[in-house]
Amino acid sequence: MPVPALPVVPAGVIPPVCTPLTADRELDVASLERLCAFLLSADVAGLFVGGSTGETAYLPDELRARALEVVVGVAAGQVPVFAGVIDMTTPRVVEHARVAEKLRASALVATAPFYAPTHPAEIAVHFRELRAAVDLPLLAYDIPTAVHTKLPTAVVASLAADGTLDGVKDSSGSIDGMRAVLAAVDRPDFRVFTGSETLADLALLAGVHGIVPGLGNVDPHGYVRLYSLALAGDWAAATAEQRRLTRLFGLIDVGDAARMGRYSSAIGAFKAGLVHRGVIASGTTSLPMIPLNDAEHAAVRDYLVEAGLV
Amino acid sequence: MPVPALPVVPAGVIPPVCTPLTADRELDVASLERLCAFLLSADVAGLFVGGSTGETAYLPDELRARALEVVVGVAAGQVPVFAGVIDMTTPRVVEHARVAEKLRASALVATAPFYAPTHPAEIAVHFRELRAAVDLPLLAYDIPTAVHTKLPTAVVASLAADGTLDGVKDSSGSIDGMRAVLAAVDRPDFRVFTGSETLADLALLAGVHGIVPGLGNVDPHGYVRLYSLALAGDWAAATAEQRRLTRLFGLIDVGDAARMGRYSSAIGAFKAGLVHRGVIASGTTSLPMIPLNDAEHAAVRDYLVEAGLV
Amino acid sequence: MPVPALPVVPAGVIPPVCTPLTADRELDVASLERLCAFLLSADVAGLFVGGSTGETAYLPDELRARALEVVVGVAAGQVPVFAGVIDMTTPRVVEHARVAEKLRASALVATAPFYAPTHPAEIAVHFRELRAAVDLPLLAYDIPTAVHTKLPTAVVASLAADGTLDGVKDSSGSIDGMRAVLAAVDRPDFRVFTGSETLADLALLAGVHGIVPGLGNVDPHGYVRLYSLALAGDWAAATAEQRRLTRLFGLIDVGDAARMGRYSSAIGAFKAGLVHRGVIASGTTSLPMIPLNDAEHAAVRDYLVEAGLV
Amino acid sequence: MPVPALPVVPAGVIPPVCTPLTADRELDVASLERLCAFLLSADVAGLFVGGSTGETAYLPDELRARALEVVVGVAAGQVPVFAGVIDMTTPRVVEHARVAEKLRASALVATAPFYAPTHPAEIAVHFRELRAAVDLPLLAYDIPTAVHTKLPTAVVASLAADGTLDGVKDSSGSIDGMRAVLAAVDRPDFRVFTGSETLADLALLAGVHGIVPGLGNVDPHGYVRLYSLALAGDWAAATAEQRRLTRLFGLIDVGDAARMGRYSSAIGAFKAGLVHRGVIASGTTSLPMIPLNDAEHAAVRDYLVEAGLV
Repeated sequence: MPVPALPVVPAGVIPPVCTPLTADRELDVASLERLCAFLLSADVAGLFVGGSTGETAYLPDELRARALEVVVGVAAGQVPVFAGVIDMTTPRVVEHARVAEKLRASALVATAPFYAPTHPAEIAVHFRELRAAVDLPLLAYDIPTAVHTKLPTAVVASLAADGTLDGVKDSSGSIDGMRAVLAAVDRPDFRVFTGSETLADLALLAGVHGIVPGLGNVDPHGYVRLYSLALAGDWAAATAEQRRLTRLFGLIDVGDAARMGRYSSAIGAFKAGLVHRGVIASGTTSLPMIPLNDAEHAAVRDYLVEAGLV
Repeated sequence: MPVPALPVVPAGVIPPVCTPLTADRELDVASLERLCAFLLSADVAGLFVGGSTGETAYLPDELRARALEVVVGVAAGQVPVFAGVIDMTTPRVVEHARVAEKLRASALVATAPFYAPTHPAEIAVHFRELRAAVDLPLLAYDIPTAVHTKLPTAVVASLAADGTLDGVKDSSGSIDGMRAVLAAVDRPDFRVFTGSETLADLALLAGVHGIVPGLGNVDPHGYVRLYSLALAGDWAAATAEQRRLTRLFGLIDVGDAARMGRYSSAIGAFKAGLVHRGVIASGTTSLPMIPLNDAEHAAVRDYLVEAGLV
Repeated sequence: MPVPALPVVPAGVIPPVCTPLTADRELDVASLERLCAFLLSADVAGLFVGGSTGETAYLPDELRARALEVVVGVAAGQVPVFAGVIDMTTPRVVEHARVAEKLRASALVATAPFYAPTHPAEIAVHFRELRAAVDLPLLAYDIPTAVHTKLPTAVVASLAADGTLDGVKDSSGSIDGMRAVLAAVDRPDFRVFTGSETLADLALLAGVHGIVPGLGNVDPHGYVRLYSLALAGDWAAATAEQRRLTRLFGLIDVGDAARMGRYSSAIGAFKAGLVHRGVIASGTTSLPMIPLNDAEHAAVRDYLVEAGLV
Repeated sequence: MPVPALPVVPAGVIPPVCTPLTADRELDVASLERLCAFLLSADVAGLFVGGSTGETAYLPDELRARALEVVVGVAAGQVPVFAGVIDMTTPRVVEHARVAEKLRASALVATAPFYAPTHPAEIAVHFRELRAAVDLPLLAYDIPTAVHTKLPTAVVASLAADGTLDGVKDSSGSIDGMRAVLAAVDRPDFRVFTGSETLADLALLAGVHGIVPGLGNVDPHGYVRLYSLALAGDWAAATAEQRRLTRLFGLIDVGDAARMGRYSSAIGAFKAGLVHRGVIASGTTSLPMIPLNDAEHAAVRDYLVEAGLV
């Protein structure tokens, strides 16, 4: 069961896989396996384990590793598995990367350093040291809401030129930024993905190669359809599909903002959606996230109904 | 060699201990031991391992643990050892806390959750779960530049009232905030420390109980002197000592801002200062920090000379 | 010479007109007249006087009024003239609005209150009071970089529903935001314009009605072409035209960032471009902006050459 | 009735005078006269017209001028009158400054440019052009919450050295920043004032020359007392008085944050306090501020009672 060699990172829809948990917050392996199978059935181009949607920031190392192991097992070489190696700085990220390599991830996805304020020169050192330490294709995860720096285009271009980076996963929502990277990088195999659930159509018209949508857990078929329409140049239909998905994405706000933060609501809603669709067993999220109450859980179903999913 | 029981967290100067590294970035145990002895010789009230100054965000788990172990060994029950348990969210922080407990830390210091956006209700759950998991005195580490939330006074007051928190280490620089906590918490044993190198005199006049200054590695005697003057109500002398320390603190900007970030410069300068004072062997910092060059290293010495330290 | 009645705010390209100044910073009326004629020759759908590109924040009241008067004169009823009424709060904005009405502006464009921190309820009062005071179609100018609040979608929707607002000019760059407004407002005559030079193609695919690009001073024909291609559904060609315009937009960075701010560079470059194209006489900008030096002025010409404009 | 010559800007308490309005939002001259007399009776060192507390951002030019005229009249040369000349950029600020000069203000207070993003070099040009245009002592008003830049210490030091600035009014709350200015400026006549209601004691220990507290409208005697205690070196008593004033300052939060912004609440509460003390006739505030309701108005009185003012 070898992992796919990745001479070129694929294009298409690569969902950031949710991490199903049991009631006592252990990994729910059976649910994770069903979720992977569900995503594969929609013809996704890859699976991304260890992203923000996967609650990586919340998972102890052992649980992170176990989740990656399960996903690599289900993927079974059919599609590449991208492993998020999210931690504060280089030495800690390298440790996660070594684990991911051992567990046969196809590629790594790493953010800029965070917690300590950082600098473009330090970001460059960070990715170069990581690439030197573990020989796997490497994507930069540009997520300013989490790490509080936006990857400078010049740094990305330089790291693309010297082979450190093979792509970028943009969760900044800046299409200007993605276009700047596309214009600055002169490598046909370099990949730019958008992490936006709501700008996928426009990002594809702008030239990005794929989508990494958290909502793709709940409606992978919708995003694959949107991607195919865009590939075919049918922008009117792609935009219509996007509008349907954007309405569905409203489910991330079911949680009462007076009682919980946006992650509690969004991750809770993705998981509730997967419960309603019969894919995973429980909507349990990691501590210290606040769980959806029954009314909020039920409200997620209304979104699925409106989107034609149940 | 028992750790001190902590019915009440002590007041005074508690330096956040630097983590000396060898040239290949292993823990330099001998230097760390000398550093602890140097700090103890200045009559500090405690030692804080695993703070921002200690490069905790940069250290792999094993190195973190080893550093704590060494410091607890040198402290040998003379002063309490505070262990920073810095990580993104509750489950990961609890793991660090269990290690710290096993290594006989006297108290824990934890930030609000970070990376994922958070919410006051989630911050409260975070500290309560942590306190429930590991039975050690717990201080909240309020460091908005790193975690991008300021601890709300109402949350701190509530966690103080129910016994979750025994104190706050404020690195926000907001004296208004510290005063608000002091006014809101009705517990004589609750402790508020400032992490500011430059506002120590004013924070003490405002009623805080102690200082946790990164610069206290380089000049622990100065901060202990400042604290004693304040305790004696000699505010003119305390302020004069503060001015001397503030000028010395200028050393954190020796690093060229075009070449490196502020942490690279500041941590590099603290370590350079300790090298110049003969306390540690090398100024090596963690990746991806940029090292000071020779001129910058030498410039640190000028600050020490001007401050009367060499 | 009546102003056009505006039962419906038009769609299309509406450049925010630059304000040409003489060497001693008086209004250069002849240059402004030539600029308006140049823009009209490109078939723009309207002229916007008093936007950020027009240096409104820098112009004394009398100069603002004189510029509006000149543009209304040249427009001569061929296209509507939109008057920016930029000031801190309601009473001051109402004064500008009264002047604009007297000078026969076709519609008003106003931001949220700024300087003092504001609140959604106050923003709603602001626009309602303004609309009640001066009976002209009113567009909200959503420009968070200047006023440091983003107009909440719910506020815009409410103000659209009760007839206070007839449209929004979005300079936030958030296509998600524009889409949210388009989805929330149920009025066929309500207009959403993007102020982005670089996202025009995508914003049009997303359903906005027009473009208000500062760069449209320098290349109005390009933006009108882009708009027409989008209207025709030729997204590949629209995107190609956008790419040409985006490269041209690089001219805003000719100014040395060590010597001047981004406005000095951008406004200076727009004016330099108009000088190079023979439309206005001088690149003089308002105080305290830093002027482009000769090399920077010349560098603008290279962008025009590359874009096929000279 | 000459204005005082100001070879040196005075030290002490200089309240930013509220602007009493009638029910239809015209200037309530009688109330303003009573307010000035009330402040003078407390031995304030000067009067500041046109600050944030004075609703300057909300006042049309004519009302601004009339208020200044009234205050200069009541001051009658007993204390200097500082005129805020708050507007977006140099040309507009110069116009306000010329009016203030004509109305015999003793000194000007101006912010950095705002609305358009700015740059240190532009800030320096701004103050130099203003000083060259109107020959009055000039203070820089450092208020990042309003103008979204913090005045760089190096810029202030340079403008102090060449005689452009005679002082700084700091509303940033950064005592570190004020200390940096005090250390960087080598002029005995240069003045640093804090605009903080709650850090006055500490700022005075840090060496600032005076206080410009909005709350000083409501309790001028308290701030003058605090200033005198600090001058006498009685820091324990100064800090106790500060604690009383800080509790009183809680009145700024009487307004329901769900219904209004912080300015609506704070300015409304200052005015309500002055109504309760019998100084002004009405609590009316400028549009688009939301008025306090009856319960909120009454709640202000409770704070006055607790502070011993009624």
